Amino acid sequence: MSFYTILKMQQETDYRIDIQHLTELIDARGAKSVGLQLPEGLLRRARSISKEIQNRCDIPVIISGRGCYGACDIDTALSEMVDLLFHFGHSGEDRENIVFVEVRSKVNICPVVQSAIAYLEGDRIALVTTIQHVEMIEEAKKILETAGKEVLIRCGSGDGLRYEGQVLGCNASAVDPRSDEVLFIGTGLFHPKGIASLIEKKVVAADPYTKNIELIDPEPLIRRRWVFLEKALDAHHFGVILSPKIGQYKQNVADEILKSARDHDIEAHLILLDEIREDALINLGMDAYVNTACCRIVDDMRKVILLNPDEFARLLRMRDRMG
Amino acid sequence: MSFYTILKMQQETDYRIDIQHLTELIDARGAKSVGLQLPEGLLRRARSISKEIQNRCDIPVIISGRGCYGACDIDTALSEMVDLLFHFGHSGEDRENIVFVEVRSKVNICPVVQSAIAYLEGDRIALVTTIQHVEMIEEAKKILETAGKEVLIRCGSGDGLRYEGQVLGCNASAVDPRSDEVLFIGTGLFHPKGIASLIEKKVVAADPYTKNIELIDPEPLIRRRWVFLEKALDAHHFGVILSPKIGQYKQNVADEILKSARDHDIEAHLILLDEIREDALINLGMDAYVNTACCRIVDDMRKVILLNPDEFARLLRMRDRMG
Repeated sequence: MSFYTILKMQQETDYRIDIQHLTELIDARGAKSVGLQLPEGLLRRARSISKEIQNRCDIPVIISGRGCYGACDIDTALSEMVDLLFHFGHSGEDRENIVFVEVRSKVNICPVVQSAIAYLEGDRIALVTTIQHVEMIEEAKKILETAGKEVLIRCGSGDGLRYEGQVLGCNASAVDPRSDEVLFIGTGLFHPKGIASLIEKKVVAADPYTKNIELIDPEPLIRRRWVFLEKALDAHHFGVILSPKIGQYKQNVADEILKSARDHDIEAHLILLDEIREDALINLGMDAYVNTACCRIVDDMRKVILLNPDEFARLLRMRDRMG
Repeated sequence: MSFYTILKMQQETDYRIDIQHLTELIDARGAKSVGLQLPEGLLRRARSISKEIQNRCDIPVIISGRGCYGACDIDTALSEMVDLLFHFGHSGEDRENIVFVEVRSKVNICPVVQSAIAYLEGDRIALVTTIQHVEMIEEAKKILETAGKEVLIRCGSGDGLRYEGQVLGCNASAVDPRSDEVLFIGTGLFHPKGIASLIEKKVVAADPYTKNIELIDPEPLIRRRWVFLEKALDAHHFGVILSPKIGQYKQNVADEILKSARDHDIEAHLILLDEIREDALINLGMDAYVNTACCRIVDDMRKVILLNPDEFARLLRMRDRMG
């Protein structure tokens, strides 16, 4: 059985999605059409959910074909086409016709937490995870405490955060600053790398599916950002990126950046861009860019200089000092 | 000087864009904000156009960061944010606050037309080009006639077609069916490949910039589509793709496909997708797809089975015959 097949089966079986709950919501709201939006890792479930809803409710279903990165990333076009949009896999405040459907993993996180103990050097451990594992965080805490660790769990602040220990790609405020290091339970390196660079602490990343454990050192991530900042010192013109995604649309931030650029006699242009890929920025041909949308898009850049708003402000201060 | 630098300079200088005309339109309409949307190959000009408009009119300008593929591909989010959207490089009917700004190339097409004569085997030549070169088509005709060819030029029919000999990526109806073969003047292989597969004639593609001449044989293109169709015979479930782009949104076509799938007991799901990339379709995990948006997206698929609506209809007929 190939890795691909295993992964597919895992997706089909390892996440609980309560169809009954969805059909009740459809009935309660009298929805005559439904949209489904899922994160990339769950997109494969769209077909079976669509099928079930059509069978049980006999109403048309439209699947959003693009994966979504968070509660900030709503398929607006789809929400305007259907009576009710189910957005799966993230927590958020329901609004108008959009309902956030949290998805829980069925995987047992205990074995990998047990293995992770050997990698933890400090005594005070901040324990964090993504939404699909939040219900198991207390069990993980007990395992660490049995091993003599002090475990700090808290609820972060910001949109889309609801649970003790829950982190987002862009928000690691659940990490208690008094901790020596961080244990992240979850899949992939996107979240642990975000934590390491946002909080500037060592992160032990424990994947309950693969049982892999990775150590994330914040230093190279921070240094990498300084290299970009250094390069941006020579930029003559900047593109200021504004996202049309309703959860990432920050006109005020963009206006502020344009104003401060103008005050510093720096040429800057406003760019509306949904999927912020490096090739699109290369085509635009600006010397550098400031991104007001997701702060983690900078991670994907290799050739293009992309700064976050706080980095752009720092750049202006550096330019001021240099005269 | 690198190829990249040369290309950049070419873009800066080889296309005429009349800024005076744009500022007059802004004044006439009393627009307080402007959006710019350009095809990928012209995106690099966005910066200078934005700068000029800001300097002359002192109003905010927003650049659409994604390239556009045709008049069918309007940045709706941007059009809703500005008083006036200039869509460059394609012809189309102006609507509400969207103005289509055609762009003409300054390159001389005569040398490459002269060279192309040696590659033309037939006597009756259908002469076609893209909108940036339409003004020079009569000169090209004279060169071919001097060489003893009969030249057929006509205006095709369909949205976005305005000029004698003008083709789009999805529309080659300017090719006279009485012609022996086609001479296409323009850049890249996207248009000539479209002509070859849509019209099923040999195309000589002459690039006035690089002076390259390529022969496009329709046979492998047509055969490739048959291979996809053959593979789709085994598909159990289909994704029916609907584009939210206003010029490509075809709900009726999608509904028709869903209905005919249902009539044939084929599982089919409606998918809303803007940028139809192969990796998105892989993530969705359907056996095959039918695309109601741009008919040329099938060209980009390698692993994923994607059919156009006419091919899906043919597939159903094949299935019917097979019982």
